[in-house]
Amino acid sequence: MKAEIISIGDELLIGQVVNTNASWLAENLNLAGIKVSRISVLPDDANELLSGLSEALERSDLIIATGGLGPTKDDITKNVLCQLFGSKLVMSQEILKEIEIFFSKRGYILTEENRKQAEIPDNCIPLHNSIGTAPGLWFEKENKIFVSVPGVPFEMKELFTNRILPRLNNLGISSFIMHKTILTQGLGESFLAGLISNWEDHLPANLKLAYLPQPGIVRLRLTAEGNDKTALSLLIKEKIEELKVIIGKYIFGYDNDTLESIVGSLLKNSGKTLSTAESCTGGYIAHLITSVPGSSEYFKGSVITYANEIKTGFLDVKVETLIHYGAVSEETVIQMAENIRKKFRTDYAVAVSGIAGPDGGTEEKPVGTVWIAIATPGKTLSKKFLFGDNRLRNIQRASLTALNLLRINIR
Amino acid sequence: MKAEIISIGDELLIGQVVNTNASWLAENLNLAGIKVSRISVLPDDANELLSGLSEALERSDLIIATGGLGPTKDDITKNVLCQLFGSKLVMSQEILKEIEIFFSKRGYILTEENRKQAEIPDNCIPLHNSIGTAPGLWFEKENKIFVSVPGVPFEMKELFTNRILPRLNNLGISSFIMHKTILTQGLGESFLAGLISNWEDHLPANLKLAYLPQPGIVRLRLTAEGNDKTALSLLIKEKIEELKVIIGKYIFGYDNDTLESIVGSLLKNSGKTLSTAESCTGGYIAHLITSVPGSSEYFKGSVITYANEIKTGFLDVKVETLIHYGAVSEETVIQMAENIRKKFRTDYAVAVSGIAGPDGGTEEKPVGTVWIAIATPGKTLSKKFLFGDNRLRNIQRASLTALNLLRINIR
Repeated sequence: MKAEIISIGDELLIGQVVNTNASWLAENLNLAGIKVSRISVLPDDANELLSGLSEALERSDLIIATGGLGPTKDDITKNVLCQLFGSKLVMSQEILKEIEIFFSKRGYILTEENRKQAEIPDNCIPLHNSIGTAPGLWFEKENKIFVSVPGVPFEMKELFTNRILPRLNNLGISSFIMHKTILTQGLGESFLAGLISNWEDHLPANLKLAYLPQPGIVRLRLTAEGNDKTALSLLIKEKIEELKVIIGKYIFGYDNDTLESIVGSLLKNSGKTLSTAESCTGGYIAHLITSVPGSSEYFKGSVITYANEIKTGFLDVKVETLIHYGAVSEETVIQMAENIRKKFRTDYAVAVSGIAGPDGGTEEKPVGTVWIAIATPGKTLSKKFLFGDNRLRNIQRASLTALNLLRINIR
Repeated sequence: MKAEIISIGDELLIGQVVNTNASWLAENLNLAGIKVSRISVLPDDANELLSGLSEALERSDLIIATGGLGPTKDDITKNVLCQLFGSKLVMSQEILKEIEIFFSKRGYILTEENRKQAEIPDNCIPLHNSIGTAPGLWFEKENKIFVSVPGVPFEMKELFTNRILPRLNNLGISSFIMHKTILTQGLGESFLAGLISNWEDHLPANLKLAYLPQPGIVRLRLTAEGNDKTALSLLIKEKIEELKVIIGKYIFGYDNDTLESIVGSLLKNSGKTLSTAESCTGGYIAHLITSVPGSSEYFKGSVITYANEIKTGFLDVKVETLIHYGAVSEETVIQMAENIRKKFRTDYAVAVSGIAGPDGGTEEKPVGTVWIAIATPGKTLSKKFLFGDNRLRNIQRASLTALNLLRINIR
């Protein structure tokens, strides 16, 4: 079974957009046991597109194409597909109704252009797009499968996960592959690799390990391949138990867990509340926490004290503390955490103060210096970190580190 | 002149690595006036590679291939190139000497594998690699050019910039391509398309328009092609002036601008300050603002009032207002904006209150309902929006909409 990914759009060919769609699709096809033998990027040009798609149909058994399905004039995929599969565009009343509902829900007026989104080739199966207006298009021809989906990443992911993958599974396309991702925080990739190097060397042949680092987090993905589902499941369980002994204190979750969702569950289940006081993270911790549905049950709010006058005026950080120790200090961050906890009347509080960069560093406190404090019902703890020199990554790493410190200390 | 980029490596086909090499090359070829008509990713497999490269040679005039030139067994590009161009591998004494110097400088011992890096096809021109051991390989055949370079990003960039580009320039290969991206906020892709449809229909043949939507933002990219740089520049200018007349109020910037950087510049240049009071956006506006280096010059801070008791207790929103109109109301959001502005003593303030979802919606105020208020030295304005039903996108759209409302009202 040969699979191909085709990304359509001039923005990729002029280098304006990096092709993250293709790597996401490649990864997810692979996780489903389908090997990708080629990725192509084709332009918004009917002739080039037609010849590129025809070549792919000759070479491969499964083709997933993204992009060019929008309502505007540069979106030509649908017409080219009609040429490729000898189809006519017909108005689908069912999809039109879905689009009408989509628009009326949002209070928008349906334009002629949007109505056209309901026109689909007469010899394909439309795949319902629950979060956009362009449906996916599923063609079958001479034992080959060709699927076209919008290039908007979240629509593409939604269609792949909920419409395409179940169909591929039903067709029995996929060997048996099992994945488990172990999520860690607090240790860089190479240090982690050093700690588990001996464990890794003794993994059985049908178990593969991949390191997937993100700013502030390292994901370890175990992939097991075989025929006996139960045996694979047991093998993975056993290996994870071994891992826990070695790096247990860095593991915060598995698979699609996030630190913010784990922290959220801990708070929710124990009926506890949280507030934050953020300086250098500028609201990013609060953003992570409130990105979890239902977070209003345990998150009361935050004060972002970017200016020192806000630290003293609204968080009662003592002026003398700022003068003697500075805003980026253990003394300041402890007062921030304890005071927001008291003022907002929460069980827990997180406070962060640091130098995100690129400016503001000194020899004593270089860019990347961050103090984090966690105030709990029983105690307040604080810790100093030295991250890197990239502003955005410092914000991310400080926020994830703070959430992990909080997680460890929720009782 | 048709150009193609080929990236070689299994790591790209399993989605482990995102293909940033191809987008960098595409962008830099484009800037040099060379249009890329296709990007392909091929596996570390001799047959697949040979057929992929042969197809490219038939289709295109210039092919730049990256990857597979390393010293390890999975690097097979050189042998496949020998098949493709009927070459024999010969040891280049010149390159061997370069490699020996490279190793001795770093105090490394030269292994047999590394010596093999000096073996090159006998009918290509080697391109000196000053920062690595694998030289670039330049083939010419029947008026076509094929160049192979290592996949290590910094080596690829160095070889392209200092070895390939000068050669392409010498050959006089290049028409002139110019891009300008217009950034808009406040109108969806299809509505924007409807407004400028007539303008778009009358664009000259050498000017292409592309819609690049992101959550909350639509980018319009104009691409002009021709020989006369000045004429192209004038043409783009003229067309943008026309656009401004039609959709001027939605345009917030160009090319690499962001709303948060534009707002930041406006505040910085006028010496004004900002605070925010966020409910449903949960700190995301503050995060965007503070992601800009130097934002501490104009951003004082924020109160995230997720719980109603924080709205009343710390932002002095009147209890009666919450009882009579609810937290998601014009009355509440106006008080939030005006009170944070006064309390934090800033010139401007932004406040947002809404229902991000997935829960919390009612018939009267469905999920996606968001009130935004902007308090300025002279007045406070407020506006209601109805976004969609996806929590994260509602947060993003509400935040970008708020920043754009602020931008328009900074004097």
